[in-house]
Amino acid sequence: MKAAYYTGNKRFTIESVQPVEPGEDEVQLSVSYCGICGSDLHVFHGAMDARVGTHRVIGHEMSGEIIAIGENIQGLELGDPVVVRPLSACGDCPACQRGHAHICQNLKVLGIDIDGAFQQIWTVPADALHKIPADLRLEHAALIEPVAVACHDVRRARLVVGEDALVIGGGPIGMLIAMVAKHLGAKVVLSEVNAYRLELAQSLGFATLNPQEVNVADEIYEQTANKGADVIFEVSGAQAGVDTMTEAAATRCRIVMVAIHGTKPTVDLFKFFWREIELLGARVYEPEDFDQAIALVASGAIDCNSIITEVRPLDEITGAFEALSGNAPAMKSLIKCS
Amino acid sequence: MKAAYYTGNKRFTIESVQPVEPGEDEVQLSVSYCGICGSDLHVFHGAMDARVGTHRVIGHEMSGEIIAIGENIQGLELGDPVVVRPLSACGDCPACQRGHAHICQNLKVLGIDIDGAFQQIWTVPADALHKIPADLRLEHAALIEPVAVACHDVRRARLVVGEDALVIGGGPIGMLIAMVAKHLGAKVVLSEVNAYRLELAQSLGFATLNPQEVNVADEIYEQTANKGADVIFEVSGAQAGVDTMTEAAATRCRIVMVAIHGTKPTVDLFKFFWREIELLGARVYEPEDFDQAIALVASGAIDCNSIITEVRPLDEITGAFEALSGNAPAMKSLIKCS
Repeated sequence: MKAAYYTGNKRFTIESVQPVEPGEDEVQLSVSYCGICGSDLHVFHGAMDARVGTHRVIGHEMSGEIIAIGENIQGLELGDPVVVRPLSACGDCPACQRGHAHICQNLKVLGIDIDGAFQQIWTVPADALHKIPADLRLEHAALIEPVAVACHDVRRARLVVGEDALVIGGGPIGMLIAMVAKHLGAKVVLSEVNAYRLELAQSLGFATLNPQEVNVADEIYEQTANKGADVIFEVSGAQAGVDTMTEAAATRCRIVMVAIHGTKPTVDLFKFFWREIELLGARVYEPEDFDQAIALVASGAIDCNSIITEVRPLDEITGAFEALSGNAPAMKSLIKCS
Repeated sequence: MKAAYYTGNKRFTIESVQPVEPGEDEVQLSVSYCGICGSDLHVFHGAMDARVGTHRVIGHEMSGEIIAIGENIQGLELGDPVVVRPLSACGDCPACQRGHAHICQNLKVLGIDIDGAFQQIWTVPADALHKIPADLRLEHAALIEPVAVACHDVRRARLVVGEDALVIGGGPIGMLIAMVAKHLGAKVVLSEVNAYRLELAQSLGFATLNPQEVNVADEIYEQTANKGADVIFEVSGAQAGVDTMTEAAATRCRIVMVAIHGTKPTVDLFKFFWREIELLGARVYEPEDFDQAIALVASGAIDCNSIITEVRPLDEITGAFEALSGNAPAMKSLIKCS
């Protein structure tokens, strides 16, 4: 079978390799589709070589079907369509012991620390699987992993029907958060500077603000009769987004920190004190977030077609990564692996 | 009666004035003791002249007795010993409408925006009063207001028995937070640089760390078997404290922002994401925090004598403020008003 190995220097090489036989607690999958995540792009650009090395199958936003089952496994059948929750926890660290295994202090991520899904056949621990409905399109199912991220972020926010939500940053995750929050009854405003993403958000029915044209906080305050946003998702990773998150916040606003801030921004901690704002870090997902994501994608609550910009075969993976680099007018690209 | 007016330039003037007659919803109090708060020191040093003006009776950490009662008031009697929750909310703003009147968007603070308690007779709205037990010493009762701050901070932290709590900053509020958290069953460590405060904390039975001598986060991690602190109170107002709060945090740690950060520090937002840390702003108190503070002071759970450094008469108020300025070996000073 074919596997795409990240080999450093913005390159993948397609290699013919023997599939990994499943152990007694493992399952072998035929990978149908695998999406390109922001973290995959980071790997591609060399930012994570120290962690992933330069001979690694990456990719973790996948859908597929079971083609072999380890002897200890019950409740799964050949041909079952599935997605993988690509986390492997140690079970022993303080985070695991206190019920936060999804952010285990020794967490291994499949597709980063262990070989991932940009290959035709992938062998994974059975307890990482979630079965999906038989009539769910496998292209759409490849979005379940990022939708689970969005579900986790919205759940961390304790969002209540009717609340005013501001999403700062309209990339794939920001857009999915907006969709999930809207589905759960929030009044959503999305802040973004990229013209392509603004237009897409508007076509999906979202109110948008462009911080290069208006003062986002002033607009939010005007739209909410001097209250501010009840819930804010900081997905931009930029100092300007961090400034906006405190400026636009209502009293007791819950701000969810979704973005990965590589440098330490300045933060208006006085405002946290003054308005009793909450900041809630949110990383990956728990099993229930995957369950919710499957339900939302299966029900059509997530407009998958609008998020999937293109689909390319495994042989063209390097080109697919190159096309997403820079400020491309694109959201999510899928690789068709089998 | 005598009242101490802040008149700018680090001075008070004692004036003889007519007491304010209580309106139909007000009560007139004989002020027994009033503590000097950090915010009072800010006023004294001129930092709040734009807000308080230069002819204002400040002071809000008081105890006293009722000497006159407005005609609409029921349930209070002459001679009742009381403390005042010195907040006046508008009732109309979004924060008030959503049940957060204690941080009303138009909040007025008695002793800052309205005349306060550094006077012999003080007239206040009856709904600001909390009755206290008859056998509670009035010197100790003057600590109820700052203890209510500590109760609010600890309540915001959702502290659970047995958790590891780190208090960064051992001034009066930090020390009271440590006492409240310990009373509620936390294992408390206090981080402080001032030798006087370190010695006081140790004499009260607290484990202490001096960040000028050890790496606080390393020590916390070692003491908690690589878990980190479950709850952290940032009471230092310093960049170093803000750095420590993320470094010492456990997965899903609740960090309570107690300090007033006048400038925007840099904050490790990546760590918030990575460990799903929470930051919770906490300001003043709600009525239930006052009720808890009264109960804690009355029960002896708060060691009031260790916090009260000195008591001076109203005539010596300027000297009392001067003595607290700089890096004085002192905690809380009370003014005996009547």
